Amino acid sequence: VTTKEIRSQEAKDFIKAMKLGDHRMIARCITLVENELPGYLNLLKELKSSDIPVIGITGPPGAGKSTLINAYVRLKVSEGKRIAVIAIDPTSPFNFGSLLGDRLRMTEHFNNENIFIRSLATRGSLGGLSEKIIEITDVLRNAYFDLIIIETVGVGQSEIEIAGLADTTVVVFVPESGDEVQAMKAGIMEIADVFVINKSDRPGGDLLAATIKKMIRPKMDSWEVPVLKTIATTGAGLDQLDKAINHHHQTVKTGQKRLFLLTEKVYQLIKKQRMQNVRREDISKELQLALNKGDVNIYTFAEKLSSTAGTSETR
Amino acid sequence: VTTKEIRSQEAKDFIKAMKLGDHRMIARCITLVENELPGYLNLLKELKSSDIPVIGITGPPGAGKSTLINAYVRLKVSEGKRIAVIAIDPTSPFNFGSLLGDRLRMTEHFNNENIFIRSLATRGSLGGLSEKIIEITDVLRNAYFDLIIIETVGVGQSEIEIAGLADTTVVVFVPESGDEVQAMKAGIMEIADVFVINKSDRPGGDLLAATIKKMIRPKMDSWEVPVLKTIATTGAGLDQLDKAINHHHQTVKTGQKRLFLLTEKVYQLIKKQRMQNVRREDISKELQLALNKGDVNIYTFAEKLSSTAGTSETR
Repeated sequence: VTTKEIRSQEAKDFIKAMKLGDHRMIARCITLVENELPGYLNLLKELKSSDIPVIGITGPPGAGKSTLINAYVRLKVSEGKRIAVIAIDPTSPFNFGSLLGDRLRMTEHFNNENIFIRSLATRGSLGGLSEKIIEITDVLRNAYFDLIIIETVGVGQSEIEIAGLADTTVVVFVPESGDEVQAMKAGIMEIADVFVINKSDRPGGDLLAATIKKMIRPKMDSWEVPVLKTIATTGAGLDQLDKAINHHHQTVKTGQKRLFLLTEKVYQLIKKQRMQNVRREDISKELQLALNKGDVNIYTFAEKLSSTAGTSETR
Repeated sequence: VTTKEIRSQEAKDFIKAMKLGDHRMIARCITLVENELPGYLNLLKELKSSDIPVIGITGPPGAGKSTLINAYVRLKVSEGKRIAVIAIDPTSPFNFGSLLGDRLRMTEHFNNENIFIRSLATRGSLGGLSEKIIEITDVLRNAYFDLIIIETVGVGQSEIEIAGLADTTVVVFVPESGDEVQAMKAGIMEIADVFVINKSDRPGGDLLAATIKKMIRPKMDSWEVPVLKTIATTGAGLDQLDKAINHHHQTVKTGQKRLFLLTEKVYQLIKKQRMQNVRREDISKELQLALNKGDVNIYTFAEKLSSTAGTSETR
């Protein structure tokens, strides 16, 4: 990958190549955007809007998300569809093993040109992930895929943010997930479009389904959130999941949720732009200088720094 | 609570009253800041910096955080200390029951004037929580407390952000938390200052402690992260927890972490300031207008909107 700046005309050619299914070009464009290499914004500005469905799949560890995605991808590929899968990996040396295991289960798909798989590292903790996912899924939506799947681990703030970026958010539990369901943040309840109880051959599935059903609140576009049971390892329930996803996508395409999702994306992009020249190391230096002089009120300090740290227009 | 703007001189008087232990004034100042009532910024700008310890306590549901906090508060109160506890509640009708249960366990403290308890709702999902917690803990630091405890539920993005705001972050697990530990994001591993395995009379505690110890990485100020075992219901291990918290606080007061925490706070405050006039409803309206005219590239659109949506200096 070159570091020469990508100009608009070249970006148009890149997008043409992606549309033809050039996997190397797709990988290159994602790398361009992921690492913000020179000209990445020119590429983003050439993207067309698209209603290719983006499915977010999330849930606590051990819910069998990877196996479910694996089985779902197999189903869609057998129908002749082309699929991109983005797995959000918490960057963490110690769970590399388990994530590698998840990825290996997908190796059956690695040599299939109708499937594109990419892991995206979160690089520690704070910020920047939502914007990156927006950008990368928009790149993929301009390639030749029929469906884009984003997989994330856990049930927390980051998942809620991701849910706001996917057209359809599927939350996966197992019959034993009662505690996680109770502890779930309200946000995810509002954003989940489909619930799946996987490994539903184990006891407790019906009870959990009833608990979840009681918690479901009215949704945008009068969408009725289904609570489905699957057994990913045998493929049981996958047809219903597919129907629910397709049905929801039709609702999104013509409904309020499209505007809601676009608004959320624009909000995240504005945040990125306004904060891009605010660097923690600069704040730290200024703070140290101020602390050397005495007591610092951080509210006055932040206000002063915010107005002098440059504006987003200078990019 | 009046809605008349609080001016600087009045804010000074408020702070004096808080320092004398006026609980009603403390509650009023928190409400002022929580709801951003007129003049709340004048109050914040009158606050003095303080090294009163802020302890963040987090961990998965069922780890016994509330019982542990309850027992720890009892210990500190018996030493004559004054404690403020902030519980971050996911706003959620369906788990109100369980949270209420948690709170009720603390009722023994409700009539003790040396203890102040306040729940802070997250109001759904996205954003704003970190800045609020910064502001409210700074208010409490200007009152008459010796120790401030912040309790959050879960192991996710929001907890990582909260960890960046507490002087000392305690992460609580139970012997059965192996899955949660494996799924933990790298960020929390880096920010946790003390690990506690609660309910350690159940089997598996030593194995989990060994797993966690292997995952611990070098910390700021050469702090060695302890992995402690407690049984909150009997009080076992609380003395060691207290020692670890005190020891860590001495390290923070004189070390690098103080600057790190202040930097993080200023970063969050700048973000709040720069985004305060960016409203999702305004974005939505502009987007709808643009969509009516045809295809919208959100990157060009966000750039344009960001530069026209006013600047933070206009507040």
